[in-house]
Amino acid sequence: MAMYVLVHGAWHTGKELEPVAECIKSAGHRAFTPTVKGNRPADPRNVGLAEAIQSIIDYLVRYDLEDLVLVGHSYGGMIITAVADRVPDRIRRLVYWNAFVPNDGESISDMLPLQYIELFESIAHERGDDSVVLPFSIWREAFINDADLETARRAFGALNPQPMKTLRDKISLKTNPMQMSVAKSFVNCTEDISLPHHYPWHPRLSQKLGLFRLIQVPGSHELCFSNPMRLAQAIMEAGRD
Amino acid sequence: MAMYVLVHGAWHTGKELEPVAECIKSAGHRAFTPTVKGNRPADPRNVGLAEAIQSIIDYLVRYDLEDLVLVGHSYGGMIITAVADRVPDRIRRLVYWNAFVPNDGESISDMLPLQYIELFESIAHERGDDSVVLPFSIWREAFINDADLETARRAFGALNPQPMKTLRDKISLKTNPMQMSVAKSFVNCTEDISLPHHYPWHPRLSQKLGLFRLIQVPGSHELCFSNPMRLAQAIMEAGRD
Amino acid sequence: MAMYVLVHGAWHTGKELEPVAECIKSAGHRAFTPTVKGNRPADPRNVGLAEAIQSIIDYLVRYDLEDLVLVGHSYGGMIITAVADRVPDRIRRLVYWNAFVPNDGESISDMLPLQYIELFESIAHERGDDSVVLPFSIWREAFINDADLETARRAFGALNPQPMKTLRDKISLKTNPMQMSVAKSFVNCTEDISLPHHYPWHPRLSQKLGLFRLIQVPGSHELCFSNPMRLAQAIMEAGRD
Repeated sequence: MAMYVLVHGAWHTGKELEPVAECIKSAGHRAFTPTVKGNRPADPRNVGLAEAIQSIIDYLVRYDLEDLVLVGHSYGGMIITAVADRVPDRIRRLVYWNAFVPNDGESISDMLPLQYIELFESIAHERGDDSVVLPFSIWREAFINDADLETARRAFGALNPQPMKTLRDKISLKTNPMQMSVAKSFVNCTEDISLPHHYPWHPRLSQKLGLFRLIQVPGSHELCFSNPMRLAQAIMEAGRD
Repeated sequence: MAMYVLVHGAWHTGKELEPVAECIKSAGHRAFTPTVKGNRPADPRNVGLAEAIQSIIDYLVRYDLEDLVLVGHSYGGMIITAVADRVPDRIRRLVYWNAFVPNDGESISDMLPLQYIELFESIAHERGDDSVVLPFSIWREAFINDADLETARRAFGALNPQPMKTLRDKISLKTNPMQMSVAKSFVNCTEDISLPHHYPWHPRLSQKLGLFRLIQVPGSHELCFSNPMRLAQAIMEAGRD
Repeated sequence: MAMYVLVHGAWHTGKELEPVAECIKSAGHRAFTPTVKGNRPADPRNVGLAEAIQSIIDYLVRYDLEDLVLVGHSYGGMIITAVADRVPDRIRRLVYWNAFVPNDGESISDMLPLQYIELFESIAHERGDDSVVLPFSIWREAFINDADLETARRAFGALNPQPMKTLRDKISLKTNPMQMSVAKSFVNCTEDISLPHHYPWHPRLSQKLGLFRLIQVPGSHELCFSNPMRLAQAIMEAGRD
């Protein structure tokens, strides 16, 4: 029996990971799906990265969760890295699932290609509230390329605007991931083209972990919608001792 | 119900794609497998790229095919790109299946490694009719590496000489693929080693599409022979809206 | 009916490949799993590469094995290359399975990243007998990342110290692999992260073979433990004509 905490990515909330958590629970584990501050529909749009991180630390403290397999998806990689830096004694293993791996002083923007930064900033400016949403065509073709149109539309409908500040803020870490002594895994969905092909999640970001376990699984960046059971299986292979 | 037109690669005719078309039809779609001019056994060997392209446009016009998912394999990528440039209103989506993606003014030779150009030109010279055939050892090991010997031999027996002019001629496009507004997908067979490993189909050529949907499937360059049903499934995942 | 000889990698003996050989036999072939000199628990620790190679040539001669599909795993790639160079008439096809591909004058150390050379030399120095063992954490995360902990531990228990001299010695070849006329295949386990991601088995080493058949299969460097049947299937697809 292991204890999984799944931290969602940008535009998502914990609710979208519940089907994944259900699969993990049905294999005999515990699983939690908190929502990061800034991602709840009612949250203010000026939430920054530090507040977002703190909300997950507060969650772990409130429910006194320990000996965790802490899983982060995409933007969630920022959160789990900072949590492991701040409360290392609560973590058994970090699992990055097509996730950002920051070093001290880096923001998500620092790890994004220029075309995304320009697109996101322009959308945030247009919206006027400094939050960003994804255009459907990019979502459909590059984020959820493995699903049918109905699934792609339903999932798109569940997304929330993401505060740009969480993507711009630089992370503050005492220890970079490579030097962290905690066990680390990286789940790579092999058809994830949400980042450009010359600028991929793996190995560009994964190798910042130093020694890590690689688990690969067919699927897009949004395997949580297209095949939650297959994703849960990969997370459990990444998360076991 | 969608409408698929499958455009074969060099050395092939539409006949070799009929088992793939049958699978697509059995899923409730329509599917056509025209043969490009120059590839029929009785065609003259001096057919060039423009004539080859025109033969497929003529085919679409003759049968009044519209709202098409237009699929191109290998050399067929040249054909479908030019067709989309010339009759964009007939196309719903382009699907490149381990296919060449040309910009205006490029030939297949411009996208081939030097060793293939030299080999092909030398074979064409030896044959004396400016057409090229593949040596069986290259076919067996690098084109159809996922099939058994009997399948490899039977498929090799179905190949025809390819007019070198179709590989040498530079394409003429008003719009490059990246700027085309039509939806685009790329099917990548993950064991396709018909191009050298440092010079692959994906992402080297696929990224010339700009925003595109990636579908990957295990198999060689000639998955149409080794597993037509698996290929059809990948094409339908690439071709749906 | 084909005849397979499976040559294990560093730290292993032929015994660990017996489950793979059993699967190959159950498909109607013959299969042998010799142990390379230097890898038996009782062998002296100062065995070098030439002696190791000779022990497999002696084995083939003693049992008069001919028309072989000669398979090498990892370090075993050094052995099968030299065997094919010395007794080419006995070999039908070479199969490299996530294996080193040497040119004349190269050692394994020449193909390893600096961090491994430093780690191995430091371990060998500490052990005092010029042999090297793998730290369990590296084994668990980077060599057998696809297995559960119990399998990882059981397999680790079967490993023997590897004489460093076999990794340091430069190979002597009359013909480099690319120029060998024998048929060649490379089996690539797609989750093999035993070498760093910017320094992989395939295509970095595989392309030294020239024309070769690629077979890919999901799994770690140690698929022989985590899924011997899947590995056997891949080896037979690589080894058939």
